[in-house]
Amino acid sequence: MEPLSRAFLESLDAADPLAPLRGQFDLGDTLYFNGNSLGPPPRATSEKLRDVVENQWRVGLIRGWNVHDWFHLPERVGDGIARLIGAKPGEVVAGDSTSVSLFKLIAAALHASDRTQVITDEANFPTDLYVLSGLQALFGKRIEVQSLPADRIAGAISGRTALATLTHVDYKTSRMHDMHALTAAARGKGALMLWDLSHSVGAVPLALNGCQVDLAVGCTYKFLNGGPGAPSFSFVARRHQQTILPLLRGWMGHAAPFMLSPDYEPAAGARRYVPGTPEVLALSAVEASLALFEQAGMDAIREKSLRMGGVFMELIESECADFGLDIATPREPEQRGSHVALRHPEAYAVMQALIARDIVGDFRAPDLMRFALTPLYQRYVDLRDVAEALRDILATGAWDTPEFRRKATVT
Amino acid sequence: MEPLSRAFLESLDAADPLAPLRGQFDLGDTLYFNGNSLGPPPRATSEKLRDVVENQWRVGLIRGWNVHDWFHLPERVGDGIARLIGAKPGEVVAGDSTSVSLFKLIAAALHASDRTQVITDEANFPTDLYVLSGLQALFGKRIEVQSLPADRIAGAISGRTALATLTHVDYKTSRMHDMHALTAAARGKGALMLWDLSHSVGAVPLALNGCQVDLAVGCTYKFLNGGPGAPSFSFVARRHQQTILPLLRGWMGHAAPFMLSPDYEPAAGARRYVPGTPEVLALSAVEASLALFEQAGMDAIREKSLRMGGVFMELIESECADFGLDIATPREPEQRGSHVALRHPEAYAVMQALIARDIVGDFRAPDLMRFALTPLYQRYVDLRDVAEALRDILATGAWDTPEFRRKATVT
Repeated sequence: MEPLSRAFLESLDAADPLAPLRGQFDLGDTLYFNGNSLGPPPRATSEKLRDVVENQWRVGLIRGWNVHDWFHLPERVGDGIARLIGAKPGEVVAGDSTSVSLFKLIAAALHASDRTQVITDEANFPTDLYVLSGLQALFGKRIEVQSLPADRIAGAISGRTALATLTHVDYKTSRMHDMHALTAAARGKGALMLWDLSHSVGAVPLALNGCQVDLAVGCTYKFLNGGPGAPSFSFVARRHQQTILPLLRGWMGHAAPFMLSPDYEPAAGARRYVPGTPEVLALSAVEASLALFEQAGMDAIREKSLRMGGVFMELIESECADFGLDIATPREPEQRGSHVALRHPEAYAVMQALIARDIVGDFRAPDLMRFALTPLYQRYVDLRDVAEALRDILATGAWDTPEFRRKATVT
Repeated sequence: MEPLSRAFLESLDAADPLAPLRGQFDLGDTLYFNGNSLGPPPRATSEKLRDVVENQWRVGLIRGWNVHDWFHLPERVGDGIARLIGAKPGEVVAGDSTSVSLFKLIAAALHASDRTQVITDEANFPTDLYVLSGLQALFGKRIEVQSLPADRIAGAISGRTALATLTHVDYKTSRMHDMHALTAAARGKGALMLWDLSHSVGAVPLALNGCQVDLAVGCTYKFLNGGPGAPSFSFVARRHQQTILPLLRGWMGHAAPFMLSPDYEPAAGARRYVPGTPEVLALSAVEASLALFEQAGMDAIREKSLRMGGVFMELIESECADFGLDIATPREPEQRGSHVALRHPEAYAVMQALIARDIVGDFRAPDLMRFALTPLYQRYVDLRDVAEALRDILATGAWDTPEFRRKATVT
């Protein structure tokens, strides 16, 4: 069989150990390649939410905090995420938005440090940069934020650097940083390293403890399929939990919340980084979804994702060679995450034309189409369908209509 | 009819214009008096969540942000809350926990002020005090936090005071501050006033703009029945929105989030106080619940709540006079919120005995039983059932068992 033929791709699907997991989702005829923006709902999620509302909440009422142990959801979901990212139990809690978690950990790290400099990637995800701008305003002259091109970051970390903060997998190109090398570079200068894992968790295997990472945050509504606006998670290496103390404090991170003491005393372990009341509905949805990742295993997910990425890039080259598409994602497996980005001057309209054919990727300004690779619910043969649709749209100019050129308010 | 007789209370229920709303809940035989800790689910909530997962998310996928306008949920829910608290559209956003919202607004207010002092009630809810302790650590010597007895607060506000922050209805006793007078006292000294409305919203009518309140936060999982750990809300009076700028910044509070600019520019209106991605599942649940409050009207809710409170305190006095119960809640309608607190040296065990009879209030250390008054789903006649059960438990010593004395991990 030709290595990119439909028959060959169908044979890969037939032999795919993850193929049965597709049945845990209900995508109909949609080819969904936007799982790095918003993952689809596992079937278990709807059932779980029904149970939480109809049984745990309606019947349990306030007793749910004990009987269904809502109280420990941040740690329970956190420990489940810890298993996916190479962290230990008690090092991760789930809750709050990624922006809030970033603020929470960076503020705490800066407060615990005598150093004055924060280094970040100038192409970091905007919320990461906005969080830093707010912290800069808050800390004033005590802190200087340096935004640098990715390739200058390792060299810029010095004895003045309190913290380097980077997104592990770039949300535009899918370029993946070398976590081990950059964390070691920071550690070599006595600086802390914080990784934003929003485009990594559930997408690539991670070894936070193996790399001696200090701090991390991540998102559960992308590859982890936790639901729109699902809570983030926060990782603080155990060795720092006694010294990097939360400044964003609340009663649920107190050592004894129901003593209702006026004096703040942090809880043990990562629980201290939980400020407010745990988001029971949202965390329960994440808990339901995490079970699929335990079942699949991150190594099997990564293996299929890399193979899909290789096949997709080859298909784009073979099917769409003449249409001015540029592959913006690195070819080397160790340098890419789990999406493929294609550059085209009319990327926005081309993506709209794909969506009209029920192939859903997304657009990132000014000229990128993103295609997420999500081995739990995608088939190898889907890649050929996407490449053929893209070829057809580009060959016929089907993208060039007022409807496809009209920008939506949110994309 | 005797004014506290069962027949009389049944006649009040028969004439109660809010009585039909009880059918919007499904409490079975439980007499639920803990709606100030966790409100029960309206029937509409389960249906709404099913629709959000099965239709909006599963079918809409990423398009849900546009098609179902998830993007504007913080303002949409915020505007619904604004109608309950006497605020204008564009002054309230929903999202984040109450602790995070407190931090967010107080940090912003202190940063915008040249003054150095924060005044609070030493009996404020613990999370409010913990948030201040974290801000104190963050701002260092620039800020001094003074915790005072409630009756000394008005007199202590001075030209040095940046902000006074108080909880409007006390979570223990139900004592309600005079919002108009205290806000005027702060304004008279050029200080900002922040109200925590966690025990007020959905319980008592509020007039934030009428009182010229500057800032407020509140909780939606108590009287508003938004669900366990439901998002909080943040109010910033329109006149301050250009000067009290968020320091806890994120992409969803940016003027143009999908331009993905590296430079922070705040969105218009209260949207700028939204840091991260809106919690779609949780905010949708709140939206479903708010509809009941629109339907009932806060004036009708307050009228029934006050009458219930009066009846309940009279019943306690008439039924339980001999058993050492002390009513900790003020009698004057204008000085109490929507729960009644009873003091008893064995409050914990007595409450456990009530719960064993399916009468669910709660305990607050060291010696308080709390009974929330929630006119949407309670009947006047329930008050007699509670008072009679309490009398029986106290008269027979039924509370005095090892089982009822054993403290649960979370209460």
